[in-house]
Amino acid sequence: MNYAFADRTRNFTSSAVRDILTVIQKGNVISFAGGLPSEEFFPLEQVQLAYEKVFASGTGALQYGGTEGYLPLRVLLKERMKTKGIYSEPETILMTTGSQQAIDLFSKVMLSPSDIVLTENPTYLAALQVFKAYEGQVCAVQGDDYGMDPQDLENKIKMLKPKFIYVVPTFSNPEGKAWSQERRIAIVELAKKYNVLVFEDDPYSEIQFEDRETYQSLASLDQERTHVLYTSTFSKTVVPALRSGWITGPKEVIRMMAQAKQASDLHSSSIDQQALYFLMRDFDLNRHIALLSREYYQRMNVMRNYLNTLESFSFTEPKGGMFIWVKADKHLDMTSLLHEAVNNGVAYVPGSAFYVDNPQKNTFRLNFTHSTPENIKLGMMRLSEVLRRVEKVM
Amino acid sequence: MNYAFADRTRNFTSSAVRDILTVIQKGNVISFAGGLPSEEFFPLEQVQLAYEKVFASGTGALQYGGTEGYLPLRVLLKERMKTKGIYSEPETILMTTGSQQAIDLFSKVMLSPSDIVLTENPTYLAALQVFKAYEGQVCAVQGDDYGMDPQDLENKIKMLKPKFIYVVPTFSNPEGKAWSQERRIAIVELAKKYNVLVFEDDPYSEIQFEDRETYQSLASLDQERTHVLYTSTFSKTVVPALRSGWITGPKEVIRMMAQAKQASDLHSSSIDQQALYFLMRDFDLNRHIALLSREYYQRMNVMRNYLNTLESFSFTEPKGGMFIWVKADKHLDMTSLLHEAVNNGVAYVPGSAFYVDNPQKNTFRLNFTHSTPENIKLGMMRLSEVLRRVEKVM
Repeated sequence: MNYAFADRTRNFTSSAVRDILTVIQKGNVISFAGGLPSEEFFPLEQVQLAYEKVFASGTGALQYGGTEGYLPLRVLLKERMKTKGIYSEPETILMTTGSQQAIDLFSKVMLSPSDIVLTENPTYLAALQVFKAYEGQVCAVQGDDYGMDPQDLENKIKMLKPKFIYVVPTFSNPEGKAWSQERRIAIVELAKKYNVLVFEDDPYSEIQFEDRETYQSLASLDQERTHVLYTSTFSKTVVPALRSGWITGPKEVIRMMAQAKQASDLHSSSIDQQALYFLMRDFDLNRHIALLSREYYQRMNVMRNYLNTLESFSFTEPKGGMFIWVKADKHLDMTSLLHEAVNNGVAYVPGSAFYVDNPQKNTFRLNFTHSTPENIKLGMMRLSEVLRRVEKVM
Repeated sequence: MNYAFADRTRNFTSSAVRDILTVIQKGNVISFAGGLPSEEFFPLEQVQLAYEKVFASGTGALQYGGTEGYLPLRVLLKERMKTKGIYSEPETILMTTGSQQAIDLFSKVMLSPSDIVLTENPTYLAALQVFKAYEGQVCAVQGDDYGMDPQDLENKIKMLKPKFIYVVPTFSNPEGKAWSQERRIAIVELAKKYNVLVFEDDPYSEIQFEDRETYQSLASLDQERTHVLYTSTFSKTVVPALRSGWITGPKEVIRMMAQAKQASDLHSSSIDQQALYFLMRDFDLNRHIALLSREYYQRMNVMRNYLNTLESFSFTEPKGGMFIWVKADKHLDMTSLLHEAVNNGVAYVPGSAFYVDNPQKNTFRLNFTHSTPENIKLGMMRLSEVLRRVEKVM
């Protein structure tokens, strides 16, 4: 039978992430491709303890829950965000299945076909997939190491009348960069001036390599809580399997998203949400995240030191997050090289998939959190071999 | 700020289910409104034990998982479905956040605006919400106690060229009815004759009050596995909080849905899926479901006996599932009566919300699984008072 799928499926891209996960599962390949946290630091005992508390609370814990999510958890999230200058109320927080679902539900309530979304370029590829799945038109805003270029942003807002602007301002995926304070202020001012919503995706900001640096979230700059949607998750800082993300923002938008979520899946796992509540209540998350940041900093250093030995490759050292974004000689196509790299026992993500348009094929993304320092050394040696071979040919 | 939501949000209905859940939370109201299983029979210890096994398997259990879901669980589901004559492979099974998400993802990959969906009338209201959220056009097919009328179905297939047919053939929500074998065969034959997909929503069939009766699923009648999508869940038979539903069907459709799911939420809770795996492996689910069915049968009996004392109300005794569907005198509007009922300490769902069109306002749905037999008695007395008061006025 010939299945007549919906028009929107024409925009489904055969996903790079899926191919990546397939690569990871091959035994001998050291993968810098995924965006996985390190299993070594998962607080297994603490997580287990949290689930035990859920079950100790009785059978009520196993019943259906509300669409918005477990209320005591939303209260704790409100308090945690407050320490970062983000003001919310439990009613303006919606629990989601990872922050990926926050992107999906927001797009579902905002995007009609041909509506414009402005993004950085490159940007998070699974967000691009969502915007395209709702038949949105994605347009790239120019930017540099400090963030989006406010002039180009203003021009494109005026010209294209976008539905919203999607950004990952702190330790972005894939570039690992952190926006300057000026640029943060500029985008929020432009959003308010032209009444455009900003969707701030913030999964990485807590993984920070310099104690003294503080990065103000765009949401904290939107004092009236009218223009910025803010989403985050504990997938990178605690454990991914909890699949508990959340989003906060203007009440009207959150309420509409809750309606969308009710039809989408009624509610996310409430056992997981209750466990996360006990984890936040009883476990020193900040200390755990500080430990994680130190360990990941070491891993990043190992990777950076190897990269420094390679000529014709440039990168900016990240100050946090999970990725190093590398540019090779401009004649190199890192997509065609991937096959050779995997054959040599190492994987990365070619940069092309992260671009809205004009992909720079000479770019690639390396993840430094999932592999041990020893494996990073080994994997970087394998990668170096492949890259040196290419350099020689060039 | 005035938020410019997507066109599809115009079809978001302010949800009856949400209002119902709000009612439930008011302390003194005995609610027959929701579709909740009874907490008394939740196998808490077994569920807890299953989670312990997940954590005992190590930190790997807490990492990101694949979009399709935990493979060993899909293998067990394949085997379980096989005992019911439904043939699948792990690759043609997609794990979802409850079966609600299966309806959502299927609609996402099938429905472009104005595409037609054929349904029973009345039918599951949260499915109607999904079809409308994707701007589908829902058209009702005529039916009776035995299921959809094949003649009307064939006419409407020819006339309207639907994208798919949505049905709950076994102990339907809201009517609680079970289709006859003839009607089951007829719909699958028509689906094949006209190449239309059938979406079989089957959350209730295992809750059965007569041991000897067997109801063949439509999926088991589709031997080639080309025309029927089949979704189910353990929310009603084990615990809702697991939020683990699944769907099986033609490989091409399942693969497209997996792509949609990847963008929607990457994957459902993998801790919950792993726990469900251990639960299926080590716990006698069939025995538990048999116990549940006996207990629910008793509760249904208590409710039915009360209903029998009321004149001007008619209903068909359900042979399984969770609901009794009641018709009052045709002049009665059960929506307007709800307020009075809640004031008298009892809630039900007015039938109107379940209709595609031409709502019969004199109908309402009663759930008999969530309340204890004692509370069913008390609640039915309260409902009887309200209804008798109305009967007297009539």
